[in-house]
Amino acid sequence: MPDTTSDTASAPITDIAFLQGVKVVDFTQFEAGPSCTESLAWLGAEVVKIENPNRGDPGRRLKPGLPDDDPYYFHIFNANKKSITVNLKSPEGLAVVKDLIRAADVVIENFAPGAIERLGLSYDVAKEINPGIIYAQVKGFGEGSPFEKNLAFDMIAQACGGTFSVTGDPDGPPTRPGISLGDTGTGMVMAITILGALYKKQQTGEGHRLQVAMQDAMLHYMRIPFSTQGKTGKIAERGGAKVPGIGNAPMGLYPCAPGGPNDYVYIMTSRANPDHWDKLLTLIGRKDLIGDARYLTPADRVENEPAVDALIAEWTRGLTKYDAMAAVGEAGIPAGAVLDTGELQNDVSFEHRGIMQTMIHPAHRPFKMPAWPVRVDGRVSRVTASPVLGEHTDQVLSDWLGLNAAAVEALKTGGAVS
Amino acid sequence: MPDTTSDTASAPITDIAFLQGVKVVDFTQFEAGPSCTESLAWLGAEVVKIENPNRGDPGRRLKPGLPDDDPYYFHIFNANKKSITVNLKSPEGLAVVKDLIRAADVVIENFAPGAIERLGLSYDVAKEINPGIIYAQVKGFGEGSPFEKNLAFDMIAQACGGTFSVTGDPDGPPTRPGISLGDTGTGMVMAITILGALYKKQQTGEGHRLQVAMQDAMLHYMRIPFSTQGKTGKIAERGGAKVPGIGNAPMGLYPCAPGGPNDYVYIMTSRANPDHWDKLLTLIGRKDLIGDARYLTPADRVENEPAVDALIAEWTRGLTKYDAMAAVGEAGIPAGAVLDTGELQNDVSFEHRGIMQTMIHPAHRPFKMPAWPVRVDGRVSRVTASPVLGEHTDQVLSDWLGLNAAAVEALKTGGAVS
Repeated sequence: MPDTTSDTASAPITDIAFLQGVKVVDFTQFEAGPSCTESLAWLGAEVVKIENPNRGDPGRRLKPGLPDDDPYYFHIFNANKKSITVNLKSPEGLAVVKDLIRAADVVIENFAPGAIERLGLSYDVAKEINPGIIYAQVKGFGEGSPFEKNLAFDMIAQACGGTFSVTGDPDGPPTRPGISLGDTGTGMVMAITILGALYKKQQTGEGHRLQVAMQDAMLHYMRIPFSTQGKTGKIAERGGAKVPGIGNAPMGLYPCAPGGPNDYVYIMTSRANPDHWDKLLTLIGRKDLIGDARYLTPADRVENEPAVDALIAEWTRGLTKYDAMAAVGEAGIPAGAVLDTGELQNDVSFEHRGIMQTMIHPAHRPFKMPAWPVRVDGRVSRVTASPVLGEHTDQVLSDWLGLNAAAVEALKTGGAVS
Repeated sequence: MPDTTSDTASAPITDIAFLQGVKVVDFTQFEAGPSCTESLAWLGAEVVKIENPNRGDPGRRLKPGLPDDDPYYFHIFNANKKSITVNLKSPEGLAVVKDLIRAADVVIENFAPGAIERLGLSYDVAKEINPGIIYAQVKGFGEGSPFEKNLAFDMIAQACGGTFSVTGDPDGPPTRPGISLGDTGTGMVMAITILGALYKKQQTGEGHRLQVAMQDAMLHYMRIPFSTQGKTGKIAERGGAKVPGIGNAPMGLYPCAPGGPNDYVYIMTSRANPDHWDKLLTLIGRKDLIGDARYLTPADRVENEPAVDALIAEWTRGLTKYDAMAAVGEAGIPAGAVLDTGELQNDVSFEHRGIMQTMIHPAHRPFKMPAWPVRVDGRVSRVTASPVLGEHTDQVLSDWLGLNAAAVEALKTGGAVS
């Protein structure tokens, strides 16, 4: 699966300037915080990562001792940002950061509980420096939760937030959704809230403290299981490929040729469209079953679901997932092939549309990655390189604080920045 | 699992007014669009659903023929909004909607491809009426995608967006993540982009067309699998409860007492913290294995993962998941119990913190639901009732268009609104 340089020469890519002039002091690390600030950067904000001079964001080095040895994890969440390296343990370094906070619109952190306060950069301190600051914090668990002091990573937040409990085979154990919803899902709800606060700040200048817990954010994404529980009165269950509580068949994954691990097509007939079933029977060459009492109503088909699924699988096994998706889709019935990361990576239509772009980075080979997926006037926000550790120290100290070269040099000599 | 009325009398709930004065004309239905506009409503925007007088948002009636028979699905995605019923097929009804668009900041729709244009409310029409309009569209597939005309529901978007391919048992078939990421995950990235556009509009008055495809939005949440593929050169695989590519053990779910379907605890030792393993051995009473060559390094433990997992499971089986989570967490090792919708629904700490709130609705019994999870100055946005179909027709026509009672009555008599 080698990276291929994108064919995006003609892709509709632009520099989105919605948030031009918005300054973000970004202490975040790993994914939950960085995914939040990256979305702001893609919309035009100036996001400055405050990094430890020795290691930087720990997401930079997944193998201890080797800097930036994994370009993917770090770069994919830190595109379009700047980096300044500051020694927060030195009084001069701390003073530099306070000056940056004074110049900023937003401060954001996702350290372990209590860490930002121990650094001397609590909300009260930041508000004192800059009463209009929007101060955003991402933690694993909420204040007042029985687990408020606990660390959380994506899997912990997902386990405690319910997503494991509704994912997997009905007869099997809880399963992790394969996406890092605990991190990026949390980052998205925080980004929305920051943007709401920025909108208001533009009118009034007012600042606010924003806090989100990853466990709490998971409940937001769990609203279908909660609504199913409300309707049935039972704890929401795992459905494998199906969606428990929908009460219609056929709905689910059907195996396709040539039988690889992801050779499946999802087919979903709608209860609101009774003709879906008859159309599907026609398509699979089983017109003889139209009107058959065993399969007449959605309830009948749910009752005979194994037989219904077998009828369809017999047909899908003879087709590739792409052909099955096309045929079922053309019959007006919702269908989707299960696509894997290789197929998605190699599908040039994503590049042609700018949805996948190649990051050109000074220290790493080019690699293709998903860009911000929302188009603005037909164009997608340009992906630019994630920062090399400390790349923008001089520039930011000059632009934000008006320091001249000699002043920056003095800070460097004193060990405050690097 | 009966709904219990919340004990939120003392919960820190407030009316967040970040988006006060922002007017949204909301044509959205089901979940992808409504989850987006609901987040705007929770931050203070005035969101007006434009609904068909006969049925309204099809999400209102999951059982044909019965209005609003499922309070959960509809109400959970439409809290804090208004509803006006307009006959878009009547010239006068269409004229009313155009007048609303003239008064609005945002228009948003997630109809099937081509439908909004057939209604005579394309972007070009809206822009002609209101050059500053932010016009947002959610579709299943992007323009220029091979599937651009296809319908999509959550499962289709997730299958085609890769999330099925990375979810499930390593030896089993692709599996649906149990959360509706295809819908709400898409709604969140659109909300962020709308808010970016609103920020800019406040300075310049400019409008924009925003478009997102559910399949494209899934790639944004798939960045860990893409980065894993980049690192390994192989298609991202399913990992069951584990995260493929992390290269550390122990990490995963361990069974707890009394052995119910969700009685598991997630334990995750970090490669960056070598002492996690020794601490865990001490906790589980196996100090004798500290320094044992079979389990010395992360690589050793990955190689002997079944034995490692068995050691831990032997200990966790004797504890409830809550006790195991507490004990492992207190030892400084990340851990999380798998919580199901019943346990989350009944955990009063969510209510005390305002993260779960009870919707009091005129037509339905009270029910508890997740609120917007981000706290603002320590408070959570208040959940108010979702609208009864057409509840705000008179109010919105008066407030937005300045129509008096006689003018509204004339529109009703003519069948334009109801």
